[in-house]
Amino acid sequence: MIVSNARTPESIRFQIRKNEITTHTAELAPGYVQANVVILPKNAAFDFLLFCQRNPKPCPVLEVLDEGSPLTKYTADKADLRYDVPKYRIYQYGELQEETSDLEKYWRNDFVTFLLGCSFTFDSALIAAGIEIRNITEGKNVPMFVTNIPTSPAGIFAGPTVVSMRPIPKDKIVRAVQVTSRFPGVHGSPIQIGDSKKIGIRDVFNPDFGDPTDILDDEVPVFWACGVTPQAVAMEAKLPFMITHSPGHMFLTDLKDEDLAII
Amino acid sequence: MIVSNARTPESIRFQIRKNEITTHTAELAPGYVQANVVILPKNAAFDFLLFCQRNPKPCPVLEVLDEGSPLTKYTADKADLRYDVPKYRIYQYGELQEETSDLEKYWRNDFVTFLLGCSFTFDSALIAAGIEIRNITEGKNVPMFVTNIPTSPAGIFAGPTVVSMRPIPKDKIVRAVQVTSRFPGVHGSPIQIGDSKKIGIRDVFNPDFGDPTDILDDEVPVFWACGVTPQAVAMEAKLPFMITHSPGHMFLTDLKDEDLAII
Repeated sequence: MIVSNARTPESIRFQIRKNEITTHTAELAPGYVQANVVILPKNAAFDFLLFCQRNPKPCPVLEVLDEGSPLTKYTADKADLRYDVPKYRIYQYGELQEETSDLEKYWRNDFVTFLLGCSFTFDSALIAAGIEIRNITEGKNVPMFVTNIPTSPAGIFAGPTVVSMRPIPKDKIVRAVQVTSRFPGVHGSPIQIGDSKKIGIRDVFNPDFGDPTDILDDEVPVFWACGVTPQAVAMEAKLPFMITHSPGHMFLTDLKDEDLAII
Repeated sequence: MIVSNARTPESIRFQIRKNEITTHTAELAPGYVQANVVILPKNAAFDFLLFCQRNPKPCPVLEVLDEGSPLTKYTADKADLRYDVPKYRIYQYGELQEETSDLEKYWRNDFVTFLLGCSFTFDSALIAAGIEIRNITEGKNVPMFVTNIPTSPAGIFAGPTVVSMRPIPKDKIVRAVQVTSRFPGVHGSPIQIGDSKKIGIRDVFNPDFGDPTDILDDEVPVFWACGVTPQAVAMEAKLPFMITHSPGHMFLTDLKDEDLAII
C-alpha cells in the first residue's frame, strides 16, 4: 500500500487555526492555489468589488464571502477566515495598527472578505515550463515596482498599478507569455516586456517592495500586474477599518493550480 | 480614395438616441460587441455584482457604470444609457410595466447600470470557424431552456441557470469548444454537450424561451450558459424597480469582438 505524505490544504489550515503554523506559506501545499486577503466593511465593498472588476489583472477575484460570514464556500469548504490565515494586519485610516494571528476580537457582522489570486500559482507554472524564477532561486522576495500605469478607479479606490518583475531569457519570453496567459485568475499575461522606463520605473535594480534580483545579459525584465496593487489602493483610501493578510502569509485554498487554467 | 460604408457603433448609437433606429440590433455593426443591460438601484448593486462574480459563465460583466452615471467609460466613450438602447423594459416588483425608448423620466441618481456579454460575438466566431448556427440560418431566435443547474446565489439573487442550445455536427464539436473557449466575456465554453436530460431539459424541441430548431442526424445539441439567466434571476428577486433592454434590443459597444478574446 502506498501512503501519501502530501498534506492537504485543509490539514494545514487546521494547524494554522490552532496556531501550530504561524509562518510564511510559500512552501506549504504545493500545487494548490493561495490567496491574498482583504477584509472591508460592507459600505466599502461595492466600490472594492467594482475596482476589482475594472482591474482584473492586478485584482483577480477568486471568492467574495457573504456579508458578515467568515466561512468560504467556493475556494474551500467552510474555511474560517477569522482563524485560517497565519498572520493578519489590522489597518485604521490606512495606518498599520497591529499584526495578529486571529480576528476573534475584531470580527464584525458587516465585514466582507475578498480572496484574490496570488502569483505563487503562476511561478509554479513557469517553473514547470522550464523557466527559472530568479527570486526563488536566490531565496528572495520578488521585486515589485510602482508604475505610471493608472488603475481604473472605482468609488473611493484609485491609484497606480504595482507590478512584479521576473528576468526572463530572451528565447523564453514567448513561452512565459503563453504559460501565464493560461492563468488570468492569478494576474495572467505580462503587462510589459523589456522596457521598464516606459512604465515609469527609474531603476529596475531598486524595487519599491521586495528584493532586487540580477538580470543577466541574455535576459530582459518582464513585468506582471501584482496583487500588492489592491492592498496599496485600499490602504490609500484610508478606510476607518481594514484587515489584510500579512505579506507572504496567505490563505490556502482547496483549489488546484490547474483549476484556474482557462484552457 | 476609398470611402468605407461600414457604420461605426457610435454613429448607430447616435441614430438610436434620436429614435431613428428602434429595431432589433442583431444585424447592426457586425464585428462589434453588443451587451445585455440591467439597471438596478444601488442598494441591490453589490448583491448583483457579486452574483455575476460567482456566475461568470451566464453573467460575464463587460462594464459597470458608476452610481448614478448613465455614461460609459470602458466599453464606449460616453455612450448614454438613458437613450442609447433602442428599447427598454421597466419592471416593478418583478412585473413588466412598460416598454420605452428612453429612460429620461425614470432615471435616478442611485441607479447602477450593468453591461453583460451577449452571444452575438460568440455566434460570429462560430460562423467564422465554419460552423453553421442553425437558428440564424432559419431566421429564428436561439432556443433557450431553464435547467436544473443552480446558479451560486448572492444576497437576494438566486435561481436556475438558463442555457441556449445550438445543434453542432459531431465532427465539429471540438472546434466549437475551442472557438467559444476564447470568449469567456460572452459566456465562453459550453456547459453541456449532447445530454439534455442530464441538465433537466425534458424536450429539447420545446424551448422555454426563443424558437425550436431542428437537430439533424449527425448533430448533437450543445448548451451554453445564457444571458437570460441574470435577467430571470433579477426579475425573480422582485426588486421594487429594475430596468433591462428589451430582448434583442441590445447596447452596441465600441469593443471589437476580438477585443474580448482571451488568447
